[in-house]
Amino acid sequence: MAGFDIVGKDIPRTDARAKATGAAVYTDDIKLPGMLHGRLLRSPVAHALIKHIDIRRAEALPGVKCVVTGKDIPKVRYGNWRLFPDLQDEYALAVDKVRFIGDEVAAVAAVDRDTAREALDLIRVDYEELPTVFDLASALRKGAPRIHDGTQGNISLDRKIRYGNVDKGLKEADYVRKDTFTVQAVSHAYLEPCSSVAQCDIDGRITLWTSTQVPYIVQCLLASTLGLRENDIRVIKPTVGGGFGGKMELRPWDFCAAFMARRTGRPVKFTLTRREELATGRRRHPMEITSTVGFRKDGTLVAKDLKILLDGGAYNAMGPTATFLCGNFGAMLYRYPSYRFLGQHVYTNKPPASAMRGFGAPQSLFASESQMNMAAEELGIDPIDIRLKNAQMPGDRIPDVATISSCGFRECMEKVSEMSAWKKKRKSRRKGYGVGVGCYSFISGGVFNWFNTQYPFSAAEVRAFDDGTVHLLTMASDIGQGSDTVLKQILAEELGLAMEDIRLTAADTAMTPQGDLGTWGSRVTLMAGNAVIDAARQIKDQLFGAVSARFDLNVIYDLECRDGRVQARGKPDRGMTFGEAVALVQKANRGEALVARGSYTPRRKGLVTPAFSFGAQVSEVEVDPETGLVDVKKMWTAHDCGTVINQKSVEGQLEGSLHMGLGYALCEELVMDQGTTINDTFLDYKMPTAQDMPPGESVCIETYEPEGPMGAKEAGEGMVSPTAPAIADAVHMATGFRCKDLPITPEKILKGKVDSR
Amino acid sequence: MAGFDIVGKDIPRTDARAKATGAAVYTDDIKLPGMLHGRLLRSPVAHALIKHIDIRRAEALPGVKCVVTGKDIPKVRYGNWRLFPDLQDEYALAVDKVRFIGDEVAAVAAVDRDTAREALDLIRVDYEELPTVFDLASALRKGAPRIHDGTQGNISLDRKIRYGNVDKGLKEADYVRKDTFTVQAVSHAYLEPCSSVAQCDIDGRITLWTSTQVPYIVQCLLASTLGLRENDIRVIKPTVGGGFGGKMELRPWDFCAAFMARRTGRPVKFTLTRREELATGRRRHPMEITSTVGFRKDGTLVAKDLKILLDGGAYNAMGPTATFLCGNFGAMLYRYPSYRFLGQHVYTNKPPASAMRGFGAPQSLFASESQMNMAAEELGIDPIDIRLKNAQMPGDRIPDVATISSCGFRECMEKVSEMSAWKKKRKSRRKGYGVGVGCYSFISGGVFNWFNTQYPFSAAEVRAFDDGTVHLLTMASDIGQGSDTVLKQILAEELGLAMEDIRLTAADTAMTPQGDLGTWGSRVTLMAGNAVIDAARQIKDQLFGAVSARFDLNVIYDLECRDGRVQARGKPDRGMTFGEAVALVQKANRGEALVARGSYTPRRKGLVTPAFSFGAQVSEVEVDPETGLVDVKKMWTAHDCGTVINQKSVEGQLEGSLHMGLGYALCEELVMDQGTTINDTFLDYKMPTAQDMPPGESVCIETYEPEGPMGAKEAGEGMVSPTAPAIADAVHMATGFRCKDLPITPEKILKGKVDSR
Repeated sequence: MAGFDIVGKDIPRTDARAKATGAAVYTDDIKLPGMLHGRLLRSPVAHALIKHIDIRRAEALPGVKCVVTGKDIPKVRYGNWRLFPDLQDEYALAVDKVRFIGDEVAAVAAVDRDTAREALDLIRVDYEELPTVFDLASALRKGAPRIHDGTQGNISLDRKIRYGNVDKGLKEADYVRKDTFTVQAVSHAYLEPCSSVAQCDIDGRITLWTSTQVPYIVQCLLASTLGLRENDIRVIKPTVGGGFGGKMELRPWDFCAAFMARRTGRPVKFTLTRREELATGRRRHPMEITSTVGFRKDGTLVAKDLKILLDGGAYNAMGPTATFLCGNFGAMLYRYPSYRFLGQHVYTNKPPASAMRGFGAPQSLFASESQMNMAAEELGIDPIDIRLKNAQMPGDRIPDVATISSCGFRECMEKVSEMSAWKKKRKSRRKGYGVGVGCYSFISGGVFNWFNTQYPFSAAEVRAFDDGTVHLLTMASDIGQGSDTVLKQILAEELGLAMEDIRLTAADTAMTPQGDLGTWGSRVTLMAGNAVIDAARQIKDQLFGAVSARFDLNVIYDLECRDGRVQARGKPDRGMTFGEAVALVQKANRGEALVARGSYTPRRKGLVTPAFSFGAQVSEVEVDPETGLVDVKKMWTAHDCGTVINQKSVEGQLEGSLHMGLGYALCEELVMDQGTTINDTFLDYKMPTAQDMPPGESVCIETYEPEGPMGAKEAGEGMVSPTAPAIADAVHMATGFRCKDLPITPEKILKGKVDSR
Repeated sequence: MAGFDIVGKDIPRTDARAKATGAAVYTDDIKLPGMLHGRLLRSPVAHALIKHIDIRRAEALPGVKCVVTGKDIPKVRYGNWRLFPDLQDEYALAVDKVRFIGDEVAAVAAVDRDTAREALDLIRVDYEELPTVFDLASALRKGAPRIHDGTQGNISLDRKIRYGNVDKGLKEADYVRKDTFTVQAVSHAYLEPCSSVAQCDIDGRITLWTSTQVPYIVQCLLASTLGLRENDIRVIKPTVGGGFGGKMELRPWDFCAAFMARRTGRPVKFTLTRREELATGRRRHPMEITSTVGFRKDGTLVAKDLKILLDGGAYNAMGPTATFLCGNFGAMLYRYPSYRFLGQHVYTNKPPASAMRGFGAPQSLFASESQMNMAAEELGIDPIDIRLKNAQMPGDRIPDVATISSCGFRECMEKVSEMSAWKKKRKSRRKGYGVGVGCYSFISGGVFNWFNTQYPFSAAEVRAFDDGTVHLLTMASDIGQGSDTVLKQILAEELGLAMEDIRLTAADTAMTPQGDLGTWGSRVTLMAGNAVIDAARQIKDQLFGAVSARFDLNVIYDLECRDGRVQARGKPDRGMTFGEAVALVQKANRGEALVARGSYTPRRKGLVTPAFSFGAQVSEVEVDPETGLVDVKKMWTAHDCGTVINQKSVEGQLEGSLHMGLGYALCEELVMDQGTTINDTFLDYKMPTAQDMPPGESVCIETYEPEGPMGAKEAGEGMVSPTAPAIADAVHMATGFRCKDLPITPEKILKGKVDSR
């Protein structure tokens, strides 16, 4: 990229070697002297009162050091929506009641995992079973069993958006259609299962190593659930093997590890099994999405009325955010003169759904992009053309939310059309062959402070040394997405240094600067990146001052940090090495170390995000008429993520998004039977493999996002959304079957072809 | 102490429980995956050229992963006197030449210690032996073998002080005496042997855990010896089991652990054996001290001419500092109208002497205090009275060095005289019974920047949180002396908090603020304490501002942090809790964390120390006329350490000083034979045991040191000095034998009695 030395280059991920050689330390790799191993007893019933728990036999088992139940713990509810305590509905261990199969009832810590496992069998729990609800319809039925006291029916949250006059718009529209879409639960399927190790210091303070996306949130919520002060808890994020939204909350094993470490005085480790992860873990929300949309004859959108029911499972988890975001994604891509949204988050007796990559967008956009394709067909307009007509542009408003600044959406559509030879392919009438399109928009982190943090949204400390190195300290959490590399690149670029000049310490709540809200909503590059730049610029101010004084530079001179030097721009002889300049600043400050703290908190950016990214995707499929099997031949993607900081990382994100989008579209689903997750192994839970991945071509449409660090914005989460509607559209072209119920299985295609015949 | 809530109180040591329960982690407790164990091959000869080293058989031994010799390492000399590179005379492993029995020649890293040990035997070294010198006289003899090239004879350093006209003074004196004293080498005998663990990150950076007093110095010197940048090295100080000056340098095992960790990619640990420690370790300098001193008839000092030869062993180590300090201690206690000092640091083929508790004072003061007692006797003046006549007072100058501020020396002497009923006991003529006196003065850290640090001498970062806690980060190194507790007390006092409100992170060069010069010369309480106060006051400024604004306080109001609150002084209703005030500051700063960095560098304090402490000690002994055995019946001590921060710690320091002083006086000595240390086990090296400790009484004469934190200054090192002269004086009273050659063994007493009869 022009103007940058490090940003935009193919810089290898700085953690690549450690991961490839096995040197990287994940939480489960941590072994402490005297460490105990914990296991959780989970409810075998979906809804029941706990009448009694007898732990005596478990406690008597040799090697068992601690058994705790809901009776033992402080009765403190927690949940990420700290700003609205009413939405905090979980206890670390069930108190009086269980609400899903897998609900955590008791925890055992023993000298080894096998003993802990054996002890679980010795705990006797008397349940009084209650009637259950496993789907939205049953949950919303009048007189349905109430899963939580104090809710209106089983609805935990309503979210409404009203923008313009939708009723008038629909009445005046030339063409109105109403569709209902349903989407399934899928798993994050991160390769590293959740794991926590807690150690209690001699002074009663807790250090918790945990596989998390949100060290600071875990710190705060663990403190409140333990009845300790925030800073008596230290949370350290080791290397994390993926999260995708599934590791952004305090979880029972975090609490139990800490609670039992305090009780026993010994370190306690919990590591979940894959079966626990799949059968009881967080998942993407199943939803029922009913959308009524009106157009003028020429394809111009006039109104949209969107109703979404989220099947939240037994607890809110991050469901409230998903409910909010669904409404925003419903009107993010196009200009809606009027828009109405009602989202309802519904409790059912199932494992809680929560945040997952895309966070409302895959569901909401499957519906709205599919509906756009259906409307285009009915109106006789090319699906890309109808989008171009309605596409958001810089300066447009997102209803009730914000104003768009950088926006390369139109360019993305034009580019993907050109790359894929869309017009030509779309004309094909070959049986079983289809191309389809889907688009997306996404956020770069949240603006709304649901966690009620008292700190900046992101912060960074930069220490500059006279040996020419700098140390970057940040609580930003690389969970595999590559943010450590990106933040180092941003800092190296800003200070004119090489990557190897930078030491990075990330995500230790006792060491790295307060605060950071963690990794979710594609917030890290933009927010932590801005904090890094803020700190770096303070460093530069001091370096520039010292160099100006040394060379007696006229005040109007521009100075720069470049190639390891600090110098007058265009006059490198009036300058010195970075380390010499740092030494000079230190001398001027009588020895004081050169340190700066930067921060970023979005302000004046509306309710949802400081920036919006965009993209378009075309899929090409062949469908076997006999088996209904969809063979995705190729995918084309054009996306606008602002400035590309790291080309390889962006490509990696695209690959990963495509992989997850493909699974979501075609094969992944947590299959439930009366509250039980049936497919709880990777043999049964069907993800695409590397061999299933279609070839793809992708292009970055670079815009410059004024709010982003060096113009960057989100680049890895939004792209998970267009794949399902694009494939559904291609399948429709190939077979005539329009799938409105993910995943698009061969069974549905075969049945749907018959139905649509 | 009046006016303080926490300072001066009997606050338990914050590390006491961890140490008592075994929870404390020392370096050797650290076990890392794949860790190798290192051993050092040491020279069996005292002076030789290395002609050839054959490591092939060692390398071939199964389990051996790395063997290195001086040929493999960068040829970078190191040593603590970085300001004068000529004084840096060591290589991590011998290059071409060995200079003492024990000199490090090669290192092996293997899968376990036994294998590494076995491999040492397989290394064949061809030495070409050279003539040796083992004592000062031989080393200084004309034509003596030269141990280092480039030295004048074997003298590595001359230090001169000239103040007033000594020759004139001595000529005009009524009474002149000249004595020569000799003192022996003794061991620090810290309970934790030296240990290092190095790990090489995937990016080539080194993390070194080492039992050290000086993490920052180790960081810098390790970087230069490895050819890395300072900040590519991270040094972490785990719990340290004593140092006493013996762990204040980069040592070969630090280097070898790091170098071999880089070579092998695996962590490498070295832990010395006790035999290595005693036979080859640093030790207190043996010296030959010749002092000529002149008095007026009435006991008034007029001149002193002091010549000290330091037997430095094979390398400089911290010998240059000892040379400087001997000269200063020689004229610190009393008013010398004229003073001349010549100190010479001499190489011999013995294990290097270096810093040890007192650092020149035990030797220098044994001579000068003994000589003072001898002069008093000759002049017919009571030894305490002659001291009172000459004692330094506030405002007096130390020749060539500094001006004394706080000084309770006279009060100490008066108090110890009263406590011990000195006048009465001194009149006793009971055979074999004696009382004796010795005094001391000591420094509170150095002023002279021999390490040439570019950072403040001490620094502290304080982070204040809205939960009412603070986090103190400092590179100050608690090595057992209790500075972690003291620094927390100072901070708690300053911020009006309780000890448990403070989290402390200490001595990690990558995390704690630059810089700190480490633990030596009793510098930590004063220097790090001042840095802590500096940071705390910045925090208070912000808290006071916020509270003033909230309560609309008149600008002339005093505010205070007290009892966990921030409030107007005397008006606690106009205030709030500490946490609330922090929250208020954060709000005012739009969320920014409340953090302050403080520092301390002594300026305008002369050459040696920002403060001087003083004390006096009386010993009471009985000497068995048949065996010559000295039975120390009781010790009385009065000392002026300024404000006492922690009463128990000061008492502990006194006990420890007394213990070391007693051993130095009576029994400890590293016995050498042709360069070999004979007594290299704790069975043979005779330290006093707990049962040997005499009862004691001690009193603090509290002064207020204006340069010290809350008035504090040194409190644990100076007291090691008066014991030997006080016991020598008592032995003289009991037996008529005046010992001028430590230790005062029964053999010397029996022989001396005969001689003096």
